[in-house]
Formats: sequence, structure tokens, C-alpha cells
Amino acid sequence: MNIFLDAMGGDNAPYEIVKGAVDAVKEYGVTLTLVGRRSVIEDELSKYDYPKDKIEILPAETVIENSEEPAMAIRRKPDSSLVVALEEMKTRENAVLISAGSTGALLSGGLLKLGRIKGIKRPALAATIPKNDGVFLLIDTGANADCKPEYLEQFAQLGKIYSENVLGKINPSIGLINIGAEAKKGNTLVKAAYELLEAGDFNFLGNVEARDIMETKADVLVCDGFTGNVVLKLTEGTADFIIKGIKKSILSSTKGKIGGMLIKDNLKNFKKQFDYAEYGGAPFLGVKGGIIKAHGSSDAYAIKNAIRQSIKFVENDVLKKISENAKKMEA
Amino acid sequence: MNIFLDAMGGDNAPYEIVKGAVDAVKEYGVTLTLVGRRSVIEDELSKYDYPKDKIEILPAETVIENSEEPAMAIRRKPDSSLVVALEEMKTRENAVLISAGSTGALLSGGLLKLGRIKGIKRPALAATIPKNDGVFLLIDTGANADCKPEYLEQFAQLGKIYSENVLGKINPSIGLINIGAEAKKGNTLVKAAYELLEAGDFNFLGNVEARDIMETKADVLVCDGFTGNVVLKLTEGTADFIIKGIKKSILSSTKGKIGGMLIKDNLKNFKKQFDYAEYGGAPFLGVKGGIIKAHGSSDAYAIKNAIRQSIKFVENDVLKKISENAKKMEA
Repeated sequence: MNIFLDAMGGDNAPYEIVKGAVDAVKEYGVTLTLVGRRSVIEDELSKYDYPKDKIEILPAETVIENSEEPAMAIRRKPDSSLVVALEEMKTRENAVLISAGSTGALLSGGLLKLGRIKGIKRPALAATIPKNDGVFLLIDTGANADCKPEYLEQFAQLGKIYSENVLGKINPSIGLINIGAEAKKGNTLVKAAYELLEAGDFNFLGNVEARDIMETKADVLVCDGFTGNVVLKLTEGTADFIIKGIKKSILSSTKGKIGGMLIKDNLKNFKKQFDYAEYGGAPFLGVKGGIIKAHGSSDAYAIKNAIRQSIKFVENDVLKKISENAKKMEA
Repeated sequence: MNIFLDAMGGDNAPYEIVKGAVDAVKEYGVTLTLVGRRSVIEDELSKYDYPKDKIEILPAETVIENSEEPAMAIRRKPDSSLVVALEEMKTRENAVLISAGSTGALLSGGLLKLGRIKGIKRPALAATIPKNDGVFLLIDTGANADCKPEYLEQFAQLGKIYSENVLGKINPSIGLINIGAEAKKGNTLVKAAYELLEAGDFNFLGNVEARDIMETKADVLVCDGFTGNVVLKLTEGTADFIIKGIKKSILSSTKGKIGGMLIKDNLKNFKKQFDYAEYGGAPFLGVKGGIIKAHGSSDAYAIKNAIRQSIKFVENDVLKKISENAKKMEA
């Protein structure tokens, strides 16, 4: 299996990335390729006991930093872990790259080096988000700030295929993020997208208002990349803000402090449910290769889960299904 | 002072509306006009002891329901509390109408009956939202789903005037909701709006990412009405979801239950800080009259606060300042 791991990207690279890789080969028996400085990776690997034939190293001397302009960095750093990995992926079938490094560089690089799958108008970045019962997939979360209705229709197709094959949903239901529940609501973009989704081959549930997102019945929520990015970050920001505020309020009284100690485990359990690390990374769908963006602060556990996600991606032939679907839609 | 109160709109009309009016005339010494069925309002008023000369009744036989198509309802129900109030406002200077009824009908009615202030491209609905330290004003929260950059520039002007004159901010700072902190980020709309805000006469802080909205340093956050509505409702939805989730988690263990009892007051204090009722209603800015949309579930306390907000609106001549600013911008 061709799973590549950018060993140099992310806040905790290379140690947590390498540790995640070691844990994954032990747990899943998968073969992985770590991309980055050989000496650094070997140093990290030497700390662990694991089946040596399961981890290969693809050497790359530099790394693209978050502060670099993505497209420029891709051109100027052919020896970076990201570009070396992408170039290697081009020579393989059904390959996946996981990186916790710069999101912009990963999307730019994926698009420039691998290219779009034939028939795909705009590749999109999706995110798996925990809700009251399980998860939903949000697509697009920021790859396309300006969208046309037909892009949103295609995001729904990409989301449907991913949701079915990686998240294990049966006949995934689709919702359209909107500012009202009725069909005629919204801006020009979503009104037109609504008609396309209703007419298309979807289990379409209609509009989903922002108030109901965290308890939506839909498996896939579709929106333009600007809205999706706002939804993703506002959800995180508001959750952090509320939890911080409650903690502060609890610590403001002695009675509260005692109560706070008693509910500590409950709070921890609740937070665990919404830990991004449980759900792997964000798939960039529509390019000729699997691209999984892991959270910048990913630890070994998050990386291991992103590897599990990549295995499903490969085993269930997501790329081929996207390609076939795009062909069908074009025909 | 010409403050009109739609006595028939909202989930708790007429009793909570009338009670809020009574409380306000007693506390602020203001004169109010209640609009709606005379007999119903008189019945409610008869329950209270208050200075009789401070509350007038403007009779109206019907009421526009939330389920009605707004523009149609405005035309078909000239005898509704909303339309009667708006017609009366046209004959007065510096009048304000507060309604907890249908948002759509209030905005449509305000626009159709009162009209835009000269020079205003698109009136906008703003909301006062509590954050970590105080409040910020979000504009537009849904009146304009499709926007042009120059509308956003004008929303900033409207927000600045309101924030200065009703919320008491000095030289209010403006932030632009965007999907990145850098100037070149975002979709076509916000990129162009960024340049206008930077070039304009604003205390402009630049882009504000959705993750940081609840702790923003800006006094006014500007966005198109689609994004604003998503932000407003997602913030509410996520907060509710988190608080509900924490409660559920606490109740799942005996230790947690005891802890939960001890932190009850802290939670209540925290929630109070985010109670919409504290901050009055949402002003619809840019029409020839003050329009305040109170929350549908407003109680007497929320109505009393909306009246306090209306007093400031009138006393500080917000309409005149909007008009003068629009003239200056056109010149």
C-alpha cells in the first residue's frame, strides 16, 4: 500500500509523526513511507521496536514552513518533504499522502503536482466533524472561497463517495447549509445549488440552518469554501470559548471549585468526544491521489488515526470511484 | 418621544410586551405607544398600576404571523399592528418601532413603508453579541444575502454610527469577517471590501477569523448577510449544544451529579452573560425610522431593554447621523 507520511510537517514533527507511524504499522500491519531528512527520521525510528520492513524512508532535505507563500514554496523547494512525496506519488497507483504541515502548500502542491481528476471542476477540502450522534462531513472547508452552483453539486458527490467509503455511511444524506429552511431561501449561489441537489441523484434533505448544524441529520453538509471555513472555525472557537468561560465561572467561587473537581472526568469525557484526533485528517478530494491534511498540532494518536483513514481510502478505491462518478456526470 | 411597540408580535404577546412597556414607563419615565387590539391591550394594562398618560394605544385589528410570506402580508394586511405602526411612523419625526413578531415582515415592511434613507444602498440588520469582554455589533445578519463590496463598506458606516451612539463606544473599531488574517485572503467580495475599509475613514483592524470572533477586539464586525446569519445562528447553536452536552455528561455519574449541583449558580451566571434579553433587539439600520427586532421569545425584561435601546437611538439622533453620513459619502 502506498501511504506516504510527511515526517517534517506539523508542530510536533518529526517525533509524534514517526511515533504515529510506528504505532500504525504495529496495530494495522500496514507498510508506510516516511518522507523527510533521513538522519532525523532514523534517529526517531531508532527509539522504537517495530517490524523494520514496514517503514521505508524517502529522503527529502528541506521542509515548507507555514509562513511561506504556498504556490511559491512548491516551485522553489523541489527538495522539500512535501514536493518529494508528491513527485513520488505521481509514479504510483492509488497513493495517499498525510501531512500535518502547511495547509496551503498541501492543497497547492496536490493541485499543481498531481492535478485534478478528469471531470472534477474544483477539488474540495472536507472535514469530519463530531455532532450529537456520530459525525458529519463538511465540504468545502476552504479550498474554494468563490464557488458556482455546479461546484457545490460536485462537492456533494465527492462528499457522498467519501462518506460512503471511508466513514461507512449507507446512502449518505446531503444537507445544504443555508440561512433558512425553505427551498427559496439564501443567496443566489445556494438557491441555484438547491435546485441542482434536488434534481440530482442524492438523498437530499434540503437546507440546514446554521443553528442546527451540530445536531444535523445529514451525513454530508455542502457549502462554498468561505462559508465552510467560517463554520469550521466558528464551531471550534465557540466551543473553546464556552468551555473556557464555564471553567472561569466555576473557579470564581469555593463551592464552584469543589463542584468543578467532581465534574472533571465528565468534562474530560465530553471534550474527548470532540477531539479532532479521533477522526483523522481532512481529505482534499478531487485530485489524482489521496491527500489527507492532519491537524497542525497532531500527536501520534491523531497520526495513527489518519493512517487508519488512509487505509480505508485506499482499500475502498475512493479515487477510482470519484473518477468513475465524474465520468458518469460528464457523459 | 415616538416609541411604538407592536403589542401583538412575538411568542409572548401581548402579556410580556405590555408588561415590558409598563416596566419601562415606570423606570425610564418615557412615553410609549402600544399598537394592536385595543380591548386586548386595555385588558393587559388594567393589571398594572402605572402613570396612565405615559402609554397610548394605537388600534390595529390583525397581526402578521411568522408563517406568512412577508411582502405579501404587508400588502394584504393594512390593518395589522405592524402596518398600522409603520404608517403612523411616516407622519412622525425620529420614531422607533419595536417588534418581536415576524423578522421578514418587519424588514419588508420597514423597507416598503418607510423607505431607505437617501444615499443608503442596502439597509442592514445588526445584532449586539456578547463576547469575552463586553459586546460587539455584527452587521449584516441576514437582510442582504447577496452583497457587493460597497454594501459592506456602508454596513461598516452604519455599524460605526450605531455602536458610537447606542452602545457608547468611542471611535469604534471595525473588523472584517474573513477566512484568514492576511489582507489578500478570502473570496472576491471580502478582498474588495477589505480595500474599501482600509481606504475609508475607519478605525479598521483588518480581517477577523471566525475562530476569534467571540474574543474579537473589534467593536463592529462586518460581513454579508448570508455569512452574518450563519455566524449568528451557529454561535447560538454551538453554545446550546455544548452546554446541553456538558449537562448530559455531568448527569451520567453520581459524582458528576453532586458536582453539578455545586456549580449550578456558576453556570447560571455564565449563561446570563450571554442572554439576548440583556442587550435589547436587533436594529434594522438605513431605513427612514428606527426599527428594532426583538427576539421572538422576548419576555418583559427583554422588551424593557429594547425600549431603553430605543430611547438612546432617539436621544442620540441616530437617524439624522446616518442620513448626514450617507450625504457626505455621496458628495
